Amino acid sequence: MPVFLDTASPDFETAFADLLSAKREDSPDVDAVVAEIIADVRSRGDAAVIELTAKFDRLELTPDTLAFSAEEVTQAIATVSDEDRASLELAAARIRAYHERQMPQDQEWTDESGATLGWRWSAVSAAGLYVPGGLASYPSSVLMNAIPAKVAGVERLAIAVPTPDGQVNPLVLLAARLSGVDEIYRIGGAQAIAALAYGTETIAPVDKITGPGNAFVAAAKRRVFGKVGIDMIAGPSEILVIADKENDPDWIALDLLSQAEHDESAQSILITDDAGFGRAVAEAVDKRLETLERRAIAGASWRDYGAVIIVRDLDEAAALSNRIAPEHLELCVVDPVALSHQTIHAGAIFLGQYTPEAIGDYVGGPNHVLPTARSARFSSGLSVMDFLKRTTLSRMTPEALRAIGPAAEQLARSESLEAHGLSVGARLKRLNG
Amino acid sequence: MPVFLDTASPDFETAFADLLSAKREDSPDVDAVVAEIIADVRSRGDAAVIELTAKFDRLELTPDTLAFSAEEVTQAIATVSDEDRASLELAAARIRAYHERQMPQDQEWTDESGATLGWRWSAVSAAGLYVPGGLASYPSSVLMNAIPAKVAGVERLAIAVPTPDGQVNPLVLLAARLSGVDEIYRIGGAQAIAALAYGTETIAPVDKITGPGNAFVAAAKRRVFGKVGIDMIAGPSEILVIADKENDPDWIALDLLSQAEHDESAQSILITDDAGFGRAVAEAVDKRLETLERRAIAGASWRDYGAVIIVRDLDEAAALSNRIAPEHLELCVVDPVALSHQTIHAGAIFLGQYTPEAIGDYVGGPNHVLPTARSARFSSGLSVMDFLKRTTLSRMTPEALRAIGPAAEQLARSESLEAHGLSVGARLKRLNG
Repeated sequence: MPVFLDTASPDFETAFADLLSAKREDSPDVDAVVAEIIADVRSRGDAAVIELTAKFDRLELTPDTLAFSAEEVTQAIATVSDEDRASLELAAARIRAYHERQMPQDQEWTDESGATLGWRWSAVSAAGLYVPGGLASYPSSVLMNAIPAKVAGVERLAIAVPTPDGQVNPLVLLAARLSGVDEIYRIGGAQAIAALAYGTETIAPVDKITGPGNAFVAAAKRRVFGKVGIDMIAGPSEILVIADKENDPDWIALDLLSQAEHDESAQSILITDDAGFGRAVAEAVDKRLETLERRAIAGASWRDYGAVIIVRDLDEAAALSNRIAPEHLELCVVDPVALSHQTIHAGAIFLGQYTPEAIGDYVGGPNHVLPTARSARFSSGLSVMDFLKRTTLSRMTPEALRAIGPAAEQLARSESLEAHGLSVGARLKRLNG
Repeated sequence: MPVFLDTASPDFETAFADLLSAKREDSPDVDAVVAEIIADVRSRGDAAVIELTAKFDRLELTPDTLAFSAEEVTQAIATVSDEDRASLELAAARIRAYHERQMPQDQEWTDESGATLGWRWSAVSAAGLYVPGGLASYPSSVLMNAIPAKVAGVERLAIAVPTPDGQVNPLVLLAARLSGVDEIYRIGGAQAIAALAYGTETIAPVDKITGPGNAFVAAAKRRVFGKVGIDMIAGPSEILVIADKENDPDWIALDLLSQAEHDESAQSILITDDAGFGRAVAEAVDKRLETLERRAIAGASWRDYGAVIIVRDLDEAAALSNRIAPEHLELCVVDPVALSHQTIHAGAIFLGQYTPEAIGDYVGGPNHVLPTARSARFSSGLSVMDFLKRTTLSRMTPEALRAIGPAAEQLARSESLEAHGLSVGARLKRLNG
């Protein structure tokens, strides 16, 4: 049974604080092992990667077979059904269209002092995308990571996807091809992250690594951070649904279960202003759990981390939502747009009862890589911005330097940085001399 | 003596690779101490912060005196000279004007399927800014961190600045007031970062922490990351100057020294297409080092990490610049704009001989918090974006769900996520029923 909370109850604050602070994930400490793997790949390159792949994935590779050939990709892709292909193509087109709108503009202007200022965006030269192997090998995640990189203008995009026992998901290769990925390596784990970050004889190093992975991958990403850029380290998935009684309890139950089925550590929360509706949704969840394929996982998630919160009104719902700062937020209420202006801390908002969160996982257009564990208070989902960086530009004329240089000299003096002041002063002396 | 490299020399590649990979900073491992301090502040709150401040800063505080009162700030500020005040005000105005232009736009559109998509930016609710105490207490850094936060719309901005033996820099307090900072605490070190991240009885927790600090502060920021957002962990400062022979060697020498005087680990590099000019600059550096106040620091930096690189032409200079990916890049050449389009990996570019880097440290307008240690390949300087986050928005109509829902169902099936598919399918069934 999930917890039932009611804001009218005197112990609500305590119970809600417990819900907020519940630790849902115990990452095993694999840091020492990962440090060894990274050191091994740095010192022995391909040889280390090949040995580790034989050991962990039971797959014998050579420098020549580290990457899939174009022919191998084409052959694998040919096995994809027309329905799957058409769906992936629709998803890719919609994700591309959304992310193209995110491209920021360069700016340049001359101000009243005569100084020309601005900034210019440029793409990361090379990026690496980690794709988990086996069951968690999601083609949709390939699209969500690779398309923003290519829209941003990344010239070289490499994927690392482990293929345990040689098994590969053809949909992952199709997603990579649809996204314009340049290289696909059949390697995984910390050794793949090390190879992407530091390079080997066969694999050129990249500047940025994104994509989800297990504890080894996450630890490796933390360790190579600084040498390369990384995306966020994602935690278990979460959904918060705010729904009034004008909804079908079964629809809302399915929305809650579509997070719960990801992972036993996932969290699904319903906030409603109608206690009867809350009970009806909980009943509908139980009913669906009887037959759901992934009922063991979804049931454990709902039992351990699920919650139904009864509020007095939607203002209260919005306030709680901002404290939760959910990864996914569904607003199934009469006026979802109005409510969305109050729920400002959320990774992605799905408005109205015809927008189940699963639409956003696949074909909506916005990215499904989103901040978890309350980090939507201070961070955003993946976007083209993650593959761009900004260079600021300044150009002084002699007049501009005369106008603002003396203030810089003064501040340099007050910070006891003499050469800073002299670098301005020497120029002013000539200009004024 | 700094190293002299020449791209025409057969051993250039080896020497340049050594220069790129030189480790300039040995951070002491203070992680264990920092972990204890954070745990102490989390469990004992104000009492721990007060004890640690007495121990490290020799300052006895109470919960009531943790923060400066408005009156104390006003009194301290009254001691600032008119010249200093006017310079800080000019800097604040220019930094604000620049950063106001960075504010990104919300977007919303309806596509051909009838889906309404978009995103909305919102500010982090509360941010904390760390300001080092003592010698490295730079009022300019207060402006550079605090103004973007306030421009972004951060409601509550708190500063932590240690005041060893009660000593405070009035210019720091003035910079805080000019920037609109809401709270100023006289605490520092890991205990200040812990207090900002987790809160105490007196200090409310924040969502994001920025600002430079020593090894303890950096280790504490790494540890609280995830609980709150942090900015980059900055390394020692760097400048790369690309200059042709049409420059005054003394000006360029002063620009190189204005980084070198920051820190013995700072790095200053000159790239020029004229060997004679390169030697003239090196001589000018030596001459200035005879009298510079911070000659011990600047001299050590220039001796240990300085470099003069002779190139055949400016194309070669640009290519090397992109491999260095400098924090600061000065282009003192006849056509700096043309060259700037080739030097795409840099934190900040200063164009032309009348734009010494020091202008950007204080009054230019762009931020002086910039990516170091080659991280300009994948990251950007501080901006309003660091205090904003983006929430994506999706709203399906029944028609839109009919149009794109089946593809989502198909992809959910192929990823074996049944509830995902059902959450779409149940709605389509009603709509099509």
